[in-house]
Amino acid sequence: MTEIKDAKNVRLFALNSNEPLAKSVADKIGLPLSKASISHFADGEIKVTIDESVRGCETYVIQSVSDPVNTNLMELLIMVDALRRASAKKINVVMPYYGYARQDRKARSREPITAKLIANLLEMDKIDRLITIDLHAAQVQGFFDIPVDHLQATQLFAKYVEERELGDDIVVVSPDHAGVSLARRFAEEIKAPIAIVDNRNDEVRERTDQEVPEYVIGDVKDKVAIIVDDIVDTGVRMNLSARALQKFGAKKIYGIATHAVLSGNAPQVLEESPLEEMWVTDTINLPAEKEFKKLRRLSVAELLKEAIVRVHNHQSIRELFKH
Amino acid sequence: MTEIKDAKNVRLFALNSNEPLAKSVADKIGLPLSKASISHFADGEIKVTIDESVRGCETYVIQSVSDPVNTNLMELLIMVDALRRASAKKINVVMPYYGYARQDRKARSREPITAKLIANLLEMDKIDRLITIDLHAAQVQGFFDIPVDHLQATQLFAKYVEERELGDDIVVVSPDHAGVSLARRFAEEIKAPIAIVDNRNDEVRERTDQEVPEYVIGDVKDKVAIIVDDIVDTGVRMNLSARALQKFGAKKIYGIATHAVLSGNAPQVLEESPLEEMWVTDTINLPAEKEFKKLRRLSVAELLKEAIVRVHNHQSIRELFKH
Amino acid sequence: MTEIKDAKNVRLFALNSNEPLAKSVADKIGLPLSKASISHFADGEIKVTIDESVRGCETYVIQSVSDPVNTNLMELLIMVDALRRASAKKINVVMPYYGYARQDRKARSREPITAKLIANLLEMDKIDRLITIDLHAAQVQGFFDIPVDHLQATQLFAKYVEERELGDDIVVVSPDHAGVSLARRFAEEIKAPIAIVDNRNDEVRERTDQEVPEYVIGDVKDKVAIIVDDIVDTGVRMNLSARALQKFGAKKIYGIATHAVLSGNAPQVLEESPLEEMWVTDTINLPAEKEFKKLRRLSVAELLKEAIVRVHNHQSIRELFKH
Amino acid sequence: MTEIKDAKNVRLFALNSNEPLAKSVADKIGLPLSKASISHFADGEIKVTIDESVRGCETYVIQSVSDPVNTNLMELLIMVDALRRASAKKINVVMPYYGYARQDRKARSREPITAKLIANLLEMDKIDRLITIDLHAAQVQGFFDIPVDHLQATQLFAKYVEERELGDDIVVVSPDHAGVSLARRFAEEIKAPIAIVDNRNDEVRERTDQEVPEYVIGDVKDKVAIIVDDIVDTGVRMNLSARALQKFGAKKIYGIATHAVLSGNAPQVLEESPLEEMWVTDTINLPAEKEFKKLRRLSVAELLKEAIVRVHNHQSIRELFKH
Amino acid sequence: MTEIKDAKNVRLFALNSNEPLAKSVADKIGLPLSKASISHFADGEIKVTIDESVRGCETYVIQSVSDPVNTNLMELLIMVDALRRASAKKINVVMPYYGYARQDRKARSREPITAKLIANLLEMDKIDRLITIDLHAAQVQGFFDIPVDHLQATQLFAKYVEERELGDDIVVVSPDHAGVSLARRFAEEIKAPIAIVDNRNDEVRERTDQEVPEYVIGDVKDKVAIIVDDIVDTGVRMNLSARALQKFGAKKIYGIATHAVLSGNAPQVLEESPLEEMWVTDTINLPAEKEFKKLRRLSVAELLKEAIVRVHNHQSIRELFKH
Amino acid sequence: MTEIKDAKNVRLFALNSNEPLAKSVADKIGLPLSKASISHFADGEIKVTIDESVRGCETYVIQSVSDPVNTNLMELLIMVDALRRASAKKINVVMPYYGYARQDRKARSREPITAKLIANLLEMDKIDRLITIDLHAAQVQGFFDIPVDHLQATQLFAKYVEERELGDDIVVVSPDHAGVSLARRFAEEIKAPIAIVDNRNDEVRERTDQEVPEYVIGDVKDKVAIIVDDIVDTGVRMNLSARALQKFGAKKIYGIATHAVLSGNAPQVLEESPLEEMWVTDTINLPAEKEFKKLRRLSVAELLKEAIVRVHNHQSIRELFKH
Repeated sequence: MTEIKDAKNVRLFALNSNEPLAKSVADKIGLPLSKASISHFADGEIKVTIDESVRGCETYVIQSVSDPVNTNLMELLIMVDALRRASAKKINVVMPYYGYARQDRKARSREPITAKLIANLLEMDKIDRLITIDLHAAQVQGFFDIPVDHLQATQLFAKYVEERELGDDIVVVSPDHAGVSLARRFAEEIKAPIAIVDNRNDEVRERTDQEVPEYVIGDVKDKVAIIVDDIVDTGVRMNLSARALQKFGAKKIYGIATHAVLSGNAPQVLEESPLEEMWVTDTINLPAEKEFKKLRRLSVAELLKEAIVRVHNHQSIRELFKH
Repeated sequence: MTEIKDAKNVRLFALNSNEPLAKSVADKIGLPLSKASISHFADGEIKVTIDESVRGCETYVIQSVSDPVNTNLMELLIMVDALRRASAKKINVVMPYYGYARQDRKARSREPITAKLIANLLEMDKIDRLITIDLHAAQVQGFFDIPVDHLQATQLFAKYVEERELGDDIVVVSPDHAGVSLARRFAEEIKAPIAIVDNRNDEVRERTDQEVPEYVIGDVKDKVAIIVDDIVDTGVRMNLSARALQKFGAKKIYGIATHAVLSGNAPQVLEESPLEEMWVTDTINLPAEKEFKKLRRLSVAELLKEAIVRVHNHQSIRELFKH
Repeated sequence: MTEIKDAKNVRLFALNSNEPLAKSVADKIGLPLSKASISHFADGEIKVTIDESVRGCETYVIQSVSDPVNTNLMELLIMVDALRRASAKKINVVMPYYGYARQDRKARSREPITAKLIANLLEMDKIDRLITIDLHAAQVQGFFDIPVDHLQATQLFAKYVEERELGDDIVVVSPDHAGVSLARRFAEEIKAPIAIVDNRNDEVRERTDQEVPEYVIGDVKDKVAIIVDDIVDTGVRMNLSARALQKFGAKKIYGIATHAVLSGNAPQVLEESPLEEMWVTDTINLPAEKEFKKLRRLSVAELLKEAIVRVHNHQSIRELFKH
Repeated sequence: MTEIKDAKNVRLFALNSNEPLAKSVADKIGLPLSKASISHFADGEIKVTIDESVRGCETYVIQSVSDPVNTNLMELLIMVDALRRASAKKINVVMPYYGYARQDRKARSREPITAKLIANLLEMDKIDRLITIDLHAAQVQGFFDIPVDHLQATQLFAKYVEERELGDDIVVVSPDHAGVSLARRFAEEIKAPIAIVDNRNDEVRERTDQEVPEYVIGDVKDKVAIIVDDIVDTGVRMNLSARALQKFGAKKIYGIATHAVLSGNAPQVLEESPLEEMWVTDTINLPAEKEFKKLRRLSVAELLKEAIVRVHNHQSIRELFKH
Repeated sequence: MTEIKDAKNVRLFALNSNEPLAKSVADKIGLPLSKASISHFADGEIKVTIDESVRGCETYVIQSVSDPVNTNLMELLIMVDALRRASAKKINVVMPYYGYARQDRKARSREPITAKLIANLLEMDKIDRLITIDLHAAQVQGFFDIPVDHLQATQLFAKYVEERELGDDIVVVSPDHAGVSLARRFAEEIKAPIAIVDNRNDEVRERTDQEVPEYVIGDVKDKVAIIVDDIVDTGVRMNLSARALQKFGAKKIYGIATHAVLSGNAPQVLEESPLEEMWVTDTINLPAEKEFKKLRRLSVAELLKEAIVRVHNHQSIRELFKH
Repeated sequence: MTEIKDAKNVRLFALNSNEPLAKSVADKIGLPLSKASISHFADGEIKVTIDESVRGCETYVIQSVSDPVNTNLMELLIMVDALRRASAKKINVVMPYYGYARQDRKARSREPITAKLIANLLEMDKIDRLITIDLHAAQVQGFFDIPVDHLQATQLFAKYVEERELGDDIVVVSPDHAGVSLARRFAEEIKAPIAIVDNRNDEVRERTDQEVPEYVIGDVKDKVAIIVDDIVDTGVRMNLSARALQKFGAKKIYGIATHAVLSGNAPQVLEESPLEEMWVTDTINLPAEKEFKKLRRLSVAELLKEAIVRVHNHQSIRELFKH
């Protein structure tokens, strides 16, 4: 059990995106959340006041850039501005879910690279470090010049699969071409082969809901298929993938996604999909109305607690990934 | 009549905060608004694609940072990122209303200076110029190192007062201590004396609605009082000021504010106040449900048109302020 | 009594603008001033050599940017360059008087914002913190992105007013429109009403000496009037305000200003004005020839000492403002 | 045929990495290469002198960061320094091959992100634009804040495949998990299905030469398989993939890679592999000793010429990708 | 005769250090000096207002950082701030004399490098180019990343020597070790040998006036010795060198220095020295009381005129140095 | 004997340029070299992985930018990138030989200032400090804004001269005009007069090998001449100087140079020159084939050890230069 050193100079702050997770992390560390007032005015302006001294302290601000993403991002930027002006020694941002991470390149002419814009905003605001989980593309680390501690929820899910005893004929499925590396990595972890759902129409994006014929590359017949993705947003891709797997003879289908964006009617789409269960983590706080029967949630609190404590104690976090 | 030069290399873009004003400015300049797609996804993420080439062009992006302020700000930052990557020659931001401008100093320990944060975000994003109207404090210009063209709506209102023929016994009233300079400037313009509503309790802020006894410094008895402010937000300060003026014997009371934030139930508060009329501009787009009988709106479109054309033609804008 | 921690790693440096104050602050902290040689050559060039090691030390450089402002500013910038290259751990600038602070906005086209330029020069030179007193506009804090500890001399004067037992019919007077907030704040402190000297001609500036008719808004008849300003420079505004108050029936008039610039023949102007006394602090060092009978000086040494010690010990300075 | 405008203010420079390509691009544009002396001293130091005036000129520096990568990179950085100091108006870097692009993320703790370092070096040196071809990951565009024109050689190869009339039963093969998106994109272009070589052992890297059992996902039996990759370096992955395809019954196998690094004994490895032919471009200059019988080279000169001319003329390059 | 192009978009400004030279340069270019008001207040604060539009203009600000150096430097920095905020297209600083240039390295521990500080201040203020003459060390160019056009007055003096027909037995003398390169360069120009005054006591500096025994290396007996230096400040070194040369048998001795700082009683020192004449330029403006009989002044106006015109026209200035 | 404090938070890294020196420094400090893997691929790409945790550590990276300079420089830049991302507390670069230092100014139009480029690259990469020895020009310190500890090998050589008992009639000789200051400084140290080899043809550079007539200024007849330079590269200048001294009657001639670049056939040139011995240090690692009989090597290990320990302990290094 790793204990935090020099605890009296540590301040943990939770902003509004995911207080339950922040509370849980703080409990595991054994420190209270520090006090700050965050008001939202009728026109959307945010006002932050920090209610206890942070002079010379190592501060950790826990905030996911999830729905409403722009407001949660501004809360974070304003909080960092306040901490800097209030003479915090270090400002560590713990961002379990990095919003806009999917906009990480110009897919077409005259598009922004919003994931880089977010990185620029944070570096301009002079944060000292980012701790985050399962970035959409690992290259987003390189959008920063400050240290980024990039944690992975893979092990969490791998351990859970093990506990569930789903049998030996598991196949790990990537729901699209860009995600094959993630599927491959998870397959290594649970010693299984992989397959790929081949969506030939490049124009179909996660966020549209139109039906498209899908094709599966690799052997899934009579197998337990686990679709692995980093984000489940509208649920369309997960649903289409599950239906394609069904068509190709998979006997049972599970879905995994670290970040449960679940926008629009995603809960309904997933509940009605061929999935047995949809496994996600709590990097994004889920309001009660977004829960659904097939949903299973694992917590990243212990992972974040370990990361924060080790970062603070100057211990290696590489060991964090050993069983 | 000033005409824009080299028009084929100019691109005007309107984002979502105030399309009617942008359209009106473009019409007066005699150019169409350029095409860009701005989508909002269910989780709040914004996606921008510019639909025509901007290579080597002078671009003007018209966007107020008004309700919803964080979303409108992010729209702007993302659009600027896209323009820069798309090789625009210059990126000029036309921001009729500068949101967060009231958070321009630390009033207390451990507060942010969010108006500066906004400036930092824009400069980091590499905008070349800001054109804005009636900043809450003129010092906000100094938050930038790039050129800021700071326009004033004073003349617009002065001319309107003249047209209305309200008589000779006008007094210009500042609704609080910080706004006396603005009142003094307007009073010069219409050759009138000034008075001040003295709110002794420093803790009462524009955004609270509690009733407080107000006091008026200066002579308002039997006069036509014009309360001058830069922003009317909840309407509470305007209402309390009007009531104090009523108590001190003003015979007719008008309100002026450049920026009509009108958050919450401001329309009702103002409609029921002792004001004869409330005069504002269209720097902020007003949805139909925020209109009320006593409201009068002047347009800043001509002012912005002149500013953009002169800036583009490298003509002095100082002359803009001469009658 | 707050004691400085880890004193052997602290270095206090006084440059040439205000050695007596620096000496006094050092005495109160209980540390000697560190040794540095600052030579001025015949052509105006300054040469700085630091005479003791500052490697790994927290350094505090005490310098007002007062007359001769450019030379004092360069002394500071050069000293900071030397400290940085000499491996100081932190460079804290204690600037009791922030010169050029009045040039904080563009009042007209094609003007600089010199107060921001000063901020840029200091940030470029990589100072870590600024401790200053009574900035002309609080917004100047926002010209910086580093922490600024903005102290106020208000309490010092309030306490002094209390000791002097000037009676119950005091009125606090702002000598112009821009200063009403400061007057209001001081009035709160001593529980008094306010009045304003209304200078209708915007063109009259502190630094001109022409006579202008002034008008007083608010009730001053038979009262003890205390004019409150942040800076007293040529003394013209203070004198004209006092004369206006006299005309409107004030029975006794006192002047307060934190920063005693007292340029030109200000001492004579003030001595011959209707003021009973002129109260200032020692943020600016006064040569003997600038003293005059009506002048009373309060010292900010204790205030600065507390600020430095608390900043160094990472204690909140918010408490500094509690009685 | 697009012609360059204002040609007398354009300067094209070739550094040492790929003079034949630079010469070919210049010929197509119809301009001579400008003169610069680049000397290499015995200790490796590089000395650059530009031999004609570049004041006020738009300059284009053509340099691949290929073997010897560090020397070619330094040549580029030094040339840019010289151009900037010599008052060039714009410095456009044309980098057909972006070396170190594969080091685009931290695969393990305590690794650098060298592709970002390169971007930082170039931005620090104040280049205005980067024109490059087929980055290893599209996210590398986001490592820059300046405009990046990211060209693709896909069409070149697609057109060549068409000309070669290889039959209808083509399958496009990705040699690993990370490259599936590229394979999918190429498959769209030539209307073919895809397959993936599944290298289960994550530890095997392109640059090792050990033999590993490979597995193919997707249907390749009796098909013409085209392996598509962005870079062919040691040739090991290409060879292993070809052998796996052979084992799974592919009837003919071709290899495609935009960038022919061909380090070590790659020519021999590829010549002896089951590949019919290896298709590459001339983004990297090949010395005679690296050529081999199965090699086919397509030129990107026309693509670069079009990009440079359109960029210079402020024409959209989106159209560049239309047939 | 080189003529300036597009003259209506050029603005030449003279600040207070050297108006006669600025006027002369402007006359030669054939343009008037643009109007700006520069006021100095009693406390030393400077206020700048630019009196004509500079939007979109190429601006040239002519200012030497000579006595009073700090004030002249601040005038320049403030003017640049004003020009930038007033939307000047380019800001070119013409600094005939670069003050503080002698503080270009740390000669001892814990010294600043003030010549670099000056460069940092100018770059932070966002100047686009520096045009200067005879820097104390050529390395100071490298303190900047913007283009620096470094002019040399050598030819001016060489031509003058030729005109004076001083005979064939000239020897060029360096007054110290650091200046040998300059002497060598001048000697090349006039085809003469060199000698060096060897001041063995490193502690003796230009600015002290103590007498020291000097030694001459090289043959000066019965020769016409021309001492060449970049700056003549107190005159002590020039005088001591002349006396050493006298002792070693030189028959006639002349002094050359580009920059005539002439601080303190330098005129008297030089007048009474063994020098026949002291030749300087007008990079620094000389008040009447600093003139003395042996002084001869050459003007750099033509040199600056040519540099400005060529820089503006994007012509090479290399040719400037050809006869 | 100075001992390093808090040794468990110190990490010393040696890159590939000079492992023997790094090893020797580490031994003297009493710490092992930390582990890092630095691989070079066939195409020249470098891959760095740090093999032990550096979180919160003070790191010292020892690397000379010597042959192959570009590769050694990139190794350093990449290592620094890795250390920063791995959360090192401080990154101190120990660069015994600063490559490219001779390119410290524009000698001609349109040249780069590569020594400044190197400084920019290092500052951009966010190093905290540079420790280096005998820069070609002291002004290079000013290319940095971070602290530079500039050590001198002068004492090392002076002490060695003393030990060798070369007699009283020593003369210190500068091999060119630019190096006279260094010669003067060394002459002070050993109480000797100086002379200068006067190379009249400015075009002859160290790196060319053509024969030129040289001339000696100062008295060398029948003396023991010690030629002092900072760098010995091709050996041509050293050889020509020695031959000139021989011609002018020197009885014995020794050469000193801190940095032994010894490129091309320098060993042979020097061996065959009139020099008795050539004294250098080990700032640059010498392969066996570059050794020659007349070479004598002194080690800077003790000097570097003292510098590192004192820097780390926050002790003054000024004392380092006292005997």
